[in-house]
Amino acid sequence: MLTAIPTVRFARGHLRIIDQTLLPGRYEIVALGTLDGVCDAIQRLRVRGAPAIGVAGAYGLLVAVEEAFGRSSGPVFDSGIDDAGNDRAAKLDMPAGIDVASLKTTLDRAAERIVATRPTAVNLSWAVERMRGVWLNQDDAHDICRRLIAEADAILREDLALGRVMTSHGAALLNDGDTVLTHCNTGGLATGGIGTALGVVFAAAAAGKHVRVFADETRPLLQGARLTAWECRERGVPVTVLVDGAAASLLATGKVSCIMVGADRITRHGDTANKVGTMGLAIIAQQFKVPFYVVAPMSSVDASLMKGADIPVEHRAHREVTHVAGVALAPDAVEAYNPAFDVTPASLIAAIVTEKGVHRPPFDFGSAA
Amino acid sequence: MLTAIPTVRFARGHLRIIDQTLLPGRYEIVALGTLDGVCDAIQRLRVRGAPAIGVAGAYGLLVAVEEAFGRSSGPVFDSGIDDAGNDRAAKLDMPAGIDVASLKTTLDRAAERIVATRPTAVNLSWAVERMRGVWLNQDDAHDICRRLIAEADAILREDLALGRVMTSHGAALLNDGDTVLTHCNTGGLATGGIGTALGVVFAAAAAGKHVRVFADETRPLLQGARLTAWECRERGVPVTVLVDGAAASLLATGKVSCIMVGADRITRHGDTANKVGTMGLAIIAQQFKVPFYVVAPMSSVDASLMKGADIPVEHRAHREVTHVAGVALAPDAVEAYNPAFDVTPASLIAAIVTEKGVHRPPFDFGSAA
Repeated sequence: MLTAIPTVRFARGHLRIIDQTLLPGRYEIVALGTLDGVCDAIQRLRVRGAPAIGVAGAYGLLVAVEEAFGRSSGPVFDSGIDDAGNDRAAKLDMPAGIDVASLKTTLDRAAERIVATRPTAVNLSWAVERMRGVWLNQDDAHDICRRLIAEADAILREDLALGRVMTSHGAALLNDGDTVLTHCNTGGLATGGIGTALGVVFAAAAAGKHVRVFADETRPLLQGARLTAWECRERGVPVTVLVDGAAASLLATGKVSCIMVGADRITRHGDTANKVGTMGLAIIAQQFKVPFYVVAPMSSVDASLMKGADIPVEHRAHREVTHVAGVALAPDAVEAYNPAFDVTPASLIAAIVTEKGVHRPPFDFGSAA
Repeated sequence: MLTAIPTVRFARGHLRIIDQTLLPGRYEIVALGTLDGVCDAIQRLRVRGAPAIGVAGAYGLLVAVEEAFGRSSGPVFDSGIDDAGNDRAAKLDMPAGIDVASLKTTLDRAAERIVATRPTAVNLSWAVERMRGVWLNQDDAHDICRRLIAEADAILREDLALGRVMTSHGAALLNDGDTVLTHCNTGGLATGGIGTALGVVFAAAAAGKHVRVFADETRPLLQGARLTAWECRERGVPVTVLVDGAAASLLATGKVSCIMVGADRITRHGDTANKVGTMGLAIIAQQFKVPFYVVAPMSSVDASLMKGADIPVEHRAHREVTHVAGVALAPDAVEAYNPAFDVTPASLIAAIVTEKGVHRPPFDFGSAA
């Protein structure tokens, strides 16, 4: 079985993440002990990927409680999952006399801040709302805290488990010798486990299929060049990087078997928000008759939205476009158009793969989600 | 009238170019006195843009002669065109006794090296072949040299003049208040004069129309972010930079009136090689019903080619993709797919604008070129 990368974990009162802004140059796990640190990490994409930030958001609430009520003698919380994704004993060592009203206020405020860090991925609010179910209508501080750990661990544990199911559904779409074009990073670094779209490739490879990856570099933040290329090499999967604009040229060669991408939010009928550049890829795929697949957990589905135009799209700082590694690429203070996502219409999607299976059009996630 | 940028000129025995690898940080004119220097400058894109490298190739032959036969007392050649593009006295101060056979050998060898620097743009071989007409079947060294200066100057002078005509044809396609999306750089830096596609915007602006530019950054070498943004600001035209992958998102907003790009080679029936990323843009434009225009001089037409697949496409170093400004973006020694160009099928092009006018499909440049 594929081992998970410890993209997002929780231990000794701290959210522990692989700092993805340092990859591929440096692999470093950082421990975040403040809500500010957690929000900043999500906002700056030190941790990223829709499923991964869902898990980070859930554990972020534990960090907020630890920060507000922890004591100098040691941590209050420890999660029940280790770096490899295996179970261990969770820990709760609460100070006595925590006021339940203060605890709930701390959690409500933290929840609001965490959800506001990134608007597009629905997994973040999905995970935080799921955690809210723990403290809503509960009156015992100790009980709330015990259940907060259990719920956050459950979110990570389910992510690990459903990742295995989802990627095995997806792997059935790949044949030995296939070449997959992907965009952004949707491997283990984007989830708690082995990933979504890129996880499918890894699952196919683990099942003995020879699969080759072409990775769009994915400007502006280069998740493809930095993270997808790094993960493929770590997993021994052949990978070639290309600039995003070269995708049409590549598809024109006829060498690409299919395109697989992840999702940040999927509407009831399958319109899919994903990293900017995805929609263009889907349009080009249609032109060259290359199947375009989306791979995402059901937690990325927002069945309350009827159409893609309803998905809020995050716009980010101009500097992400105008600078790389601190170096100015454009004239000073030039304007930039920098949406972090775009929305691919369902009509361009050949299948959406979730832990429930391979969904074919017409999509309707109304009953399932 | 719009003043020309001295993108490529010749003076005192040297090819003089704006070193475009230094922009937008530094505006520097470098003088190249050796054939090696000229070939390296074209190869490394210190001078770039199909029409501009045509002019550089023509003057490069003068540099080769100067290098082989010049004397320490001073330059042999001076061109008859100044930085502003105005006429001045050309100069020919040849040493006596140059052997015509050696001269021709020097020219033949230089021609071969210059044409080999970049395979896709036809303007380079077009200009060099035009220069070859000067020394073919000529037997007087002095006469050949005199006519070489005149011919190279004629190529630049025609580029300056036809640029004005071509851009005024193109400007008729733009209305007051229009927004133009463009790719790569097709302004004055890409030609001897004011440019091709971006020149059209400048001509429209000079005619009093308010036109706004969105500039694809154009990875890997960022000609859009670096050069198009710089030129727009120099000319006072509002410009916004975007990553190449954001073009579909931008077109989906409905804010773009048309797309205008240049060309490196156009086949008899209108298939167009241009900077990688152009074909994807054309496919997306079709999806959103945004007119897609190509602007290029007739010297970019290669009527000997019947279809786009016949155009040789230059593939460049992996490092252009994996590094920016010396900083590694991807894991060490990762493979990269790096075609410098792609070929947009004529079926996706609404019009091709040349100095002869606005050509509409079906295109046939068979008789015209």
